[in-house]
Amino acid sequence: MLQPPPAEPGMREEEVETPALLLDLDAFEANLDAMARRLEGSGVRLRAHAKTHKSPIIARLQMARGAIGQCVQKVGEAEALAWGGIPDILVSNQVVGERKLARLAALSGISQVAVCADDAAQVAAIEHAAEATGTRLAVLVEIDCGAARCGVAPGPAAVALAERIAASPHLRFGGLQSYHGSAQHKRKPEERAAAIAGAVEATRRTVEQLRQRGLESPIVGGGGTGSFEHELASGVYTEIQAGSYAFMDADYARNEAPPPFRQSLFVLATVMSRALDGIAVVDAGHKAVPTDSGYPLVAGRPGLVYVSASDEHGKLRVEDGATPALGEKLRLIPGHCDPTVDRFDWYVGVRRGRVECLWPVAARGAMH
Amino acid sequence: MLQPPPAEPGMREEEVETPALLLDLDAFEANLDAMARRLEGSGVRLRAHAKTHKSPIIARLQMARGAIGQCVQKVGEAEALAWGGIPDILVSNQVVGERKLARLAALSGISQVAVCADDAAQVAAIEHAAEATGTRLAVLVEIDCGAARCGVAPGPAAVALAERIAASPHLRFGGLQSYHGSAQHKRKPEERAAAIAGAVEATRRTVEQLRQRGLESPIVGGGGTGSFEHELASGVYTEIQAGSYAFMDADYARNEAPPPFRQSLFVLATVMSRALDGIAVVDAGHKAVPTDSGYPLVAGRPGLVYVSASDEHGKLRVEDGATPALGEKLRLIPGHCDPTVDRFDWYVGVRRGRVECLWPVAARGAMH
Repeated sequence: MLQPPPAEPGMREEEVETPALLLDLDAFEANLDAMARRLEGSGVRLRAHAKTHKSPIIARLQMARGAIGQCVQKVGEAEALAWGGIPDILVSNQVVGERKLARLAALSGISQVAVCADDAAQVAAIEHAAEATGTRLAVLVEIDCGAARCGVAPGPAAVALAERIAASPHLRFGGLQSYHGSAQHKRKPEERAAAIAGAVEATRRTVEQLRQRGLESPIVGGGGTGSFEHELASGVYTEIQAGSYAFMDADYARNEAPPPFRQSLFVLATVMSRALDGIAVVDAGHKAVPTDSGYPLVAGRPGLVYVSASDEHGKLRVEDGATPALGEKLRLIPGHCDPTVDRFDWYVGVRRGRVECLWPVAARGAMH
Repeated sequence: MLQPPPAEPGMREEEVETPALLLDLDAFEANLDAMARRLEGSGVRLRAHAKTHKSPIIARLQMARGAIGQCVQKVGEAEALAWGGIPDILVSNQVVGERKLARLAALSGISQVAVCADDAAQVAAIEHAAEATGTRLAVLVEIDCGAARCGVAPGPAAVALAERIAASPHLRFGGLQSYHGSAQHKRKPEERAAAIAGAVEATRRTVEQLRQRGLESPIVGGGGTGSFEHELASGVYTEIQAGSYAFMDADYARNEAPPPFRQSLFVLATVMSRALDGIAVVDAGHKAVPTDSGYPLVAGRPGLVYVSASDEHGKLRVEDGATPALGEKLRLIPGHCDPTVDRFDWYVGVRRGRVECLWPVAARGAMH
């Protein structure tokens, strides 16, 4: 169930077995550097989202450039990071279930861990887990700042939940989680600005009301790759939670005024059939490249258009005589980087056409 | 990267960690039995498709009921089956690349393996791999019988390729691969019948032309869960390659006159938030339940409708006051069973509310 690595260091890119998850190290490092430079002196910290990369190696590279810690969505991801030496982890999500909370509390022996809540019953369950483990956990209140998914209403409901956390002997109030995911992918900059302006207003109001009740918010977290400039400028957020900036994908590139990062993540695929005129078939279909945010693009080959996917096949339309060779390797740009990474066991790091490193996707499949 | 099992035998279903891949064993066994009964005495054999289940355990259960062998799409899947004791494996797909072909040829020491080709260059590459390994491989000619994906044209082009295979000293002509995947999901029975009628006609004509050149087709394979009655009735196909029949999914259930199998595969999910009126959020999003064939359905809960997915969240609309409890476990019916199975490391087999077995998804992630 763990797949063997598709490459060895020193190989040429064309020799990598496919489908493979390719990381262009020059572009990747440039992205990490660009984000670090942008945040320098801003007073806002980066808590990079590991749901994107699922790797303590990448987490350490981010933290070496100033990231304060990592976000995750699942306890299994928190485990992979804590076991990999990451000292500060926020589960930017609800964790429901006694066993999961016990696993999370157990991690507090080796890393600082925090978790979110949007329900009084959850606060009680986290308190119970922390007490049973003999630890004290930071709990953030998640507010619904516009995504209409999880989170209590900003304002009095959030304050009531925060007070309940603060009153729990084995918990401490960790601040606010205020993330507007769908805002990242609104196409027009003014739509993104408007969505985040609403989130900022709701968050600012809630922070103020908490302060009036004597509760400071150590973390005010949110913001992703598509919108973080707005959270940065808000004066309210203390941490941004971007993840995709390290890799980018076809969907972020479709935004008008897309975020200033380079495409570093690819799925390398092989042309496995070109028996039909005008069509080439690659060995990367639904199982290798998720299509929830559209079909992948073919990098650097304008005459090749990925037009349909089945389980293990991707069909390319060949335009303007751009017929690829049978066996030719093509770099696909995934529509959506996060679920793409989660398909693979290994990153194949390449630089100037050579494989430089293999990194395990340590939290691959860590869904629970 | 291998995830711990989400359950232990003897647990109640409600105790299983989520998201988990749940197999309802009564329904699953009923499906295997129903297919075996249907094929009994038909003269057509089942070579079940392991791209669906990725498990030598399930392969053996199918073969105990009369299946002649298994299909796979990838060399990594063939390895998982051969290592798990499956004696007869057809890669119903092209395999392009020297290392992959060497791995496939190496398997011939422990299992009978065959592979498809739709290009003379591939035939030469397979011959080379077989010679280097000192073995003889069966190669089927894949014909394009309507799917417009892989496969040479039926008729003379297929015959020419078959003759090239037969003339290769380390190969033998294994027959025809004639699979019309997209026909399975045409909604109306008459559309499926028409698509398969075309495939049958092209296949029959090619078999005849091969015979005229002295080439018998040991295998004439194709047919899936959505169409196999037509291939059965054709008198041309010798093997059908159904896979989904064991599990079923929401997309097959959308066919008019759907195939006569029960839903046995589910993704068990937990309600993790219900902070917003009219909405419940489960812990299974894009990473747990692929949405390429639509959102999952919620089994047995007509008032709950899965309306959107993000990476780790599924948003349910709550109708008619059907609000689930926080922490409640729900069975989701995946839109498409094949890529769903490939997300998970473990099947959790349940019967009458109790976990009976844990089976590894042995070829999970076997993409190359």
